[in-house]
Amino acid sequence: MSTTDTIAAIATPPGQGGIGIVRVSGSGGSGEHGRTVWKIADQIFQGLEKPSAVKGGTFLHGKVTAADGTEIDEALCLIFRAPKSYTGEDTVEIQGHGGPVVLKKILRRCLDAGARMAEPGEFTKRAFLNGKMDLVQAEAVADLIHAQSDRAAKAALEQLEGGLSKQFNFLYDGLMATAADIETTLDFVEDELPDDVFPNLGKKLDESFQALETLLATWDEGRLLREGARVVIMGRPNAGKSTLFNALLGSDRAIVTELPGTTRDVIEETLVLDGIPLRVLDTAGLRETECLIEREGIRRARAHSASADIAVYLIDSSLPFSKEDEEHLAKLDPKRTVVILNKADKKVSGFKFQVSGFKLVETSLINGAGVAEVKAAIAAKLEAGVNLNAPAHAVISERHRNLLETSRGELTLARKRISEGGELGAAPAAEHLRAALEALGQVTGRIYHNELLDNIFSRFCIGK
Amino acid sequence: MSTTDTIAAIATPPGQGGIGIVRVSGSGGSGEHGRTVWKIADQIFQGLEKPSAVKGGTFLHGKVTAADGTEIDEALCLIFRAPKSYTGEDTVEIQGHGGPVVLKKILRRCLDAGARMAEPGEFTKRAFLNGKMDLVQAEAVADLIHAQSDRAAKAALEQLEGGLSKQFNFLYDGLMATAADIETTLDFVEDELPDDVFPNLGKKLDESFQALETLLATWDEGRLLREGARVVIMGRPNAGKSTLFNALLGSDRAIVTELPGTTRDVIEETLVLDGIPLRVLDTAGLRETECLIEREGIRRARAHSASADIAVYLIDSSLPFSKEDEEHLAKLDPKRTVVILNKADKKVSGFKFQVSGFKLVETSLINGAGVAEVKAAIAAKLEAGVNLNAPAHAVISERHRNLLETSRGELTLARKRISEGGELGAAPAAEHLRAALEALGQVTGRIYHNELLDNIFSRFCIGK
Repeated sequence: MSTTDTIAAIATPPGQGGIGIVRVSGSGGSGEHGRTVWKIADQIFQGLEKPSAVKGGTFLHGKVTAADGTEIDEALCLIFRAPKSYTGEDTVEIQGHGGPVVLKKILRRCLDAGARMAEPGEFTKRAFLNGKMDLVQAEAVADLIHAQSDRAAKAALEQLEGGLSKQFNFLYDGLMATAADIETTLDFVEDELPDDVFPNLGKKLDESFQALETLLATWDEGRLLREGARVVIMGRPNAGKSTLFNALLGSDRAIVTELPGTTRDVIEETLVLDGIPLRVLDTAGLRETECLIEREGIRRARAHSASADIAVYLIDSSLPFSKEDEEHLAKLDPKRTVVILNKADKKVSGFKFQVSGFKLVETSLINGAGVAEVKAAIAAKLEAGVNLNAPAHAVISERHRNLLETSRGELTLARKRISEGGELGAAPAAEHLRAALEALGQVTGRIYHNELLDNIFSRFCIGK
Repeated sequence: MSTTDTIAAIATPPGQGGIGIVRVSGSGGSGEHGRTVWKIADQIFQGLEKPSAVKGGTFLHGKVTAADGTEIDEALCLIFRAPKSYTGEDTVEIQGHGGPVVLKKILRRCLDAGARMAEPGEFTKRAFLNGKMDLVQAEAVADLIHAQSDRAAKAALEQLEGGLSKQFNFLYDGLMATAADIETTLDFVEDELPDDVFPNLGKKLDESFQALETLLATWDEGRLLREGARVVIMGRPNAGKSTLFNALLGSDRAIVTELPGTTRDVIEETLVLDGIPLRVLDTAGLRETECLIEREGIRRARAHSASADIAVYLIDSSLPFSKEDEEHLAKLDPKRTVVILNKADKKVSGFKFQVSGFKLVETSLINGAGVAEVKAAIAAKLEAGVNLNAPAHAVISERHRNLLETSRGELTLARKRISEGGELGAAPAAEHLRAALEALGQVTGRIYHNELLDNIFSRFCIGK
């Protein structure tokens, strides 16, 4: 472990609660911010004993004090001695009252005493650099914290425990061994090699390829778990979109009136349906309008529908089926659309839904009728689209997927070359395999460079 | 300390952060929820040692596991042995990852293992009942957490440290002594008493009365510190209210268009100005309108202006000064109103502001001109209204003020009776003093009943 400066940040969620924590970590003695954790802790924390004097795994009760000795907060001070800490460095956690102002004052005090403000994800980055976890596990920390459902939390925890890392490592080690075998063939004159060398190498590559494909196939589930499925509510004005939105959420989030064009901003809320987190978006009614604000709202509604996992299209069945609805529906994919015939209690005689292929649900939302059916229809569409009971250790991260796809591309080329056989194929195959390994190694961080780390950890919050 | 059941709650703020805490506290062995903290901790937490086996002031690293042994989270377990804990009871704090889903799973696990969900403020209530703090200090915990400015945090911490309690206790003890003296006079025949007894008692009551008045006088500052000053932005449509709101906040919080009537809902945000927290409200423009939604917005705007500390009234000076503005201003108090003549760059020739007594600021908000002047004018109005440099230990709580006022009322009556002199006055004076003491005792909790505690702690969040 190299010497590092001492960093500090608020580690609990922002906002108000009973308890808040400021974390201070470092191993250093040199440089501008080279005051050790212990010097800082002794200076800012007054308890029965000095933080520097007590052993790891204990905590002190006392006060955080300003430079002039006035009290900033009553607090606990938790002592972690390297390498037995999250970062692997010497660490203290100051546990104070969970108010934003008081925590900022404690943090400010740590900085004044010689710590540097931590960058986003810097504690976890240090944990990675000190060998406490690999990159896949580091990313799982963020996923676990952001998990919006039990399924997502479970997947992240499995990833944190190293289940997914093990699979990546297995793949990497397999490919590495094959790459070594291929490179060995380059040292031989062709006719000295047994006949079955290249077919065997090909078989090994096929196995690795298959394992890689299996991992990539878990992507769809993973993304849904992590980001939630986007459900966009659409339809012409006054069809009942905001009423449905509120009914799904069980709250009065959106303003509902009888006036068409009430909703202008796109409103987004999350809920969990059958263990799947949903991001439900209420949008402006689709119509031609002179109103600038409303027009902007409709533009945003259309933009959101393009990236939706599920579209819920509402039709007011108290009016005759319209050309406009037909046109809007023509742009939607029946496989990922639920059509709602609302105001079924006032259905106009002769209403005829004239587009085929869509799942239909009749509702009378103003009376609360049909909400459960809408939820069931959304869940069914989602479950038809993805296998929610896919095996554990799914690939959740877009970064992992991109690297796996790069790796698959190189592996495909390597297989092609090997199938050609002999030296002519072996040399370029070895090169493609090295590229495949380079990509794969970046998944867990066996291979890394600063830009990669910056990319990963800049997405973390400060304090993680 | 009586035996209590074991309670559990998430103690860190809601939302996402690096670390979250579930707190478990109890002293019990009996009743439905009578499993002790240690039994629960041993069952749910797997580390190198059992929580029940290690001493207070230490923490273990390990895992929170489900009943079937599967992992719920990696965690620390902090051990507090009674009475050395926040509540004064045996306590553990499970420190896991700061994600809402994972923390709820840990809490669920504690409940399944025998804890009961804590009521709001129940940890602090137990701290009070176990003599760890008085009611004034307990309330300061909540104030410290909710503090929105350094001034407010400082005032709350002083209150938590017991500064305010000391003053209440001093007042209480003084009145108690005088009450005893008065009751003693009741045992004497009148002419046995020295002549100066009643004048002396009167003098003592005057001193107490003065101390009480001094405390009550700190109320105005206290309220402002705790709740923030309410600043309501008002004016006719399209005067630039939302533009000002966004400029004050330095963000694009409110939708701004050239169309009158864009803002409908009352939007509220907080900012800190010169150390004073402000709650700034943007309201719908004041006009006659047919639009139902807008009319409701205007009704709300008027309602909010009534309770504002400061009104900021915007006038579009690119139009001639209007009768309507004059009428709206007639309802506002110049002492707590700042009038803004906006669009000064397009000021109509002959614009004449025709109401006297108001502080005027010229702005051209669309160009960002005049925002600093508006802030300065608001701050000046606030500072003129209250003494921001009042002494420490201000009365912040409405509850305290109400009790102090009750106490003052009784004390006033007691003084009157004493000034009448003799037995005729002494008996009723003693009764009024008892009532004054009853009210005063409820401030710090020397005297309390269940309803009082429920009232106080139900305002806390769960987990405090």
